[in-house]
Amino acid sequence: MTTALRVALAGLGTVGGGVIRVLEANRELITRRAGRPIDIVAVSARDRSKDRGVDISGFQWVDDTSALARCDADVVVELVGGADGPALALARATLAAGKGFVTANKAMLAHHGLELAEAAETAKVPLKFEAAVAGGIPVIKGLREGAAANAIGRVYGILNGTCNFILSKMESEGRDFVDVLAEAQALGYAEADPSFDIDGVDAAHKLSILSSVAFGTRPAFGGVAISGIRHVIAADIAEAAALGYRVRLVGVAEAGANGLFQRVHAHLVPADHPLAHVTGSTNAVVAEGNYVGRLLFQGAGAGDGPTASAVVADLIDIARGEYGPAYAMPVAALAEASAAPAGDRRGRAYLRFTVADRVGVLAEIAAAMRDAGVSIESLIQRAAPEDGTALVVIVTHEAPESHIGAALERLRGSQSLAGEPLWMHILD
Amino acid sequence: MTTALRVALAGLGTVGGGVIRVLEANRELITRRAGRPIDIVAVSARDRSKDRGVDISGFQWVDDTSALARCDADVVVELVGGADGPALALARATLAAGKGFVTANKAMLAHHGLELAEAAETAKVPLKFEAAVAGGIPVIKGLREGAAANAIGRVYGILNGTCNFILSKMESEGRDFVDVLAEAQALGYAEADPSFDIDGVDAAHKLSILSSVAFGTRPAFGGVAISGIRHVIAADIAEAAALGYRVRLVGVAEAGANGLFQRVHAHLVPADHPLAHVTGSTNAVVAEGNYVGRLLFQGAGAGDGPTASAVVADLIDIARGEYGPAYAMPVAALAEASAAPAGDRRGRAYLRFTVADRVGVLAEIAAAMRDAGVSIESLIQRAAPEDGTALVVIVTHEAPESHIGAALERLRGSQSLAGEPLWMHILD
Repeated sequence: MTTALRVALAGLGTVGGGVIRVLEANRELITRRAGRPIDIVAVSARDRSKDRGVDISGFQWVDDTSALARCDADVVVELVGGADGPALALARATLAAGKGFVTANKAMLAHHGLELAEAAETAKVPLKFEAAVAGGIPVIKGLREGAAANAIGRVYGILNGTCNFILSKMESEGRDFVDVLAEAQALGYAEADPSFDIDGVDAAHKLSILSSVAFGTRPAFGGVAISGIRHVIAADIAEAAALGYRVRLVGVAEAGANGLFQRVHAHLVPADHPLAHVTGSTNAVVAEGNYVGRLLFQGAGAGDGPTASAVVADLIDIARGEYGPAYAMPVAALAEASAAPAGDRRGRAYLRFTVADRVGVLAEIAAAMRDAGVSIESLIQRAAPEDGTALVVIVTHEAPESHIGAALERLRGSQSLAGEPLWMHILD
Repeated sequence: MTTALRVALAGLGTVGGGVIRVLEANRELITRRAGRPIDIVAVSARDRSKDRGVDISGFQWVDDTSALARCDADVVVELVGGADGPALALARATLAAGKGFVTANKAMLAHHGLELAEAAETAKVPLKFEAAVAGGIPVIKGLREGAAANAIGRVYGILNGTCNFILSKMESEGRDFVDVLAEAQALGYAEADPSFDIDGVDAAHKLSILSSVAFGTRPAFGGVAISGIRHVIAADIAEAAALGYRVRLVGVAEAGANGLFQRVHAHLVPADHPLAHVTGSTNAVVAEGNYVGRLLFQGAGAGDGPTASAVVADLIDIARGEYGPAYAMPVAALAEASAAPAGDRRGRAYLRFTVADRVGVLAEIAAAMRDAGVSIESLIQRAAPEDGTALVVIVTHEAPESHIGAALERLRGSQSLAGEPLWMHILD
């Protein structure tokens, strides 16, 4: 096999430029590893004349992105983004044309991954998406192949670099969410509209992909319970630290007798847990296998270099002929997993209440806990100097989540509370 | 492909038993992932009647291990161990017979890997060895495939669980090496003759395999500078901790203009470095790629379950037909790398001297440093309460290693020193 693998590239943003640079800079090494050259033959993007710092004059320019599916390439790389629209049209057209498809598009995979995997199987061509989850970290490969001998009980991790950047900055500088978010936006680490990141949707897209590969189940993005980090305040991080925890946005997926449980939520992570040491925009994924035990994969979760590294790794696999079903097994072999209810789960919780600083508040909260059958492990009350309110922070003993929910329900509308309580799960 | 992959298994120790258990317990899942069943058809070991907690009555028993090469299997799994002898004979015979070969045998690969890779290429059959490095962690795959788009500048890690168990126990309990080693032996975590582990040879075997896969160079075990942890005392670990470091046995391989540098040595690891958090018998490997940046792979470095997980992952790759050249590229494409001299390297050093507690000792050491051109960043002298000696601990500024060596050379034979100084490198 000395004929080159011919690649068409849709999208010339930072990652697209990165792919061109990686293939150029490491060309000799990649050719030795892949067993043959990997050549970009055609590109498409919105604006041909934009300066991207890479020379695209040697590639065929295609105005209409979806026309890449018909160009003279073996594989199309999609870096356009968006769950639907041009990216999805290109994916469908490419697979229908019998070409391989490589994408970093987690939103599209979360919504249409199964359809695309079926189309790839029908056409007997590769569909690969290492770059869609955790940037440069080869975690799809790690689960699909490295841990393939194991029944995975749980897969979880830090899947959104923007959130982790914000939380670790809040932690190291004692600042509040809104303040750090504004700085992250100014630095370009967070989008102008940051809601996909900070509300957990992006992490949920990635989690649903990880779940499918880890458990051999059909992707079920709709089954992910999603919340983000908007309501975490500096005091939460300080109280958590005093208790021996760090606050992280963690995506957790668990396969159990009750079905598939998937959640993206702010968690308290014990300070001696590997995820507690993951700071800045780094990502990390833990998989727990029934023979291998706990595997950790960690690295850069975003950025042009790391993401391009993952895209090109997929191309090398394809050039080598080392690929198989997208989700580690044929679509027909993927199990249909019902969503496991959260209420049955048992765990410890961190609860933070902002309360009026007056007689009886603590008794009211404690009574609500008692009446819902939730036992308190520790409780801290601190007055807020400015506004006459106080914070009450509770760490519960292990309890069914439905009981904790019931305790919060009992307190709903109470005159003692100023604003919504915050509930974070404690990672075990 | 619904015909089973037929496997012959040589060696029925803990890992061999683990492989049988994994294939049995996860059979349905593995079949879905591999696309076909993986069946053990024949086994061989020293003692047929020994109780291993697994039922081997369904497998053909072969008395002479090397005869497995001729049995009716597609792949032979070798878990016999030993660089030469029966393991090597079996490897040669298996590949010559045109069967695939899977092994966990790092010693054999360090010494004969290239020959075996050539034989596998000639026979067009797989040679795979995920379990040979870092137990259950899919780090061979991570480098060979996951990071394949990158020129790797450096790969390093904690590759020996026994050493890490001893060092972290010394750290957490303030105990001395000899004491903890004896406990590790009693617990079965260290061998009766522990020298392969504690003198760094086992880690060096693994490092030479990692190097080859990471850099695309011929395996060069002979080029690894090896030392172990025998001379680390409790005070070293305490002083390192006071300076913000942990002591770890780290294997480091670096590809540079001067050639390939490989070393296994006790290092000071900054407390905020991922390797500083790796405790007990856990292993971890870091690879630094020119686009992906720093990737970390962490997990169980030994044990029957994790090692069997890696062996079976190799078998699943083979069943899927997803494998290629053993060292990520054909043997002919591997570069011949000359060993880079250590002396040219620049770095910071930790030096510990046990000295007679008398006038002029410090001046003598300081003069030796000055005369060799080594600048001192910090120096601590502490009297040892028992025997009238004192410890002098120096952390140097960055300097060529040849200068540090020269300083120690100047002090050789000095009446001021009681015993050999200890030199540990500081990981940057």
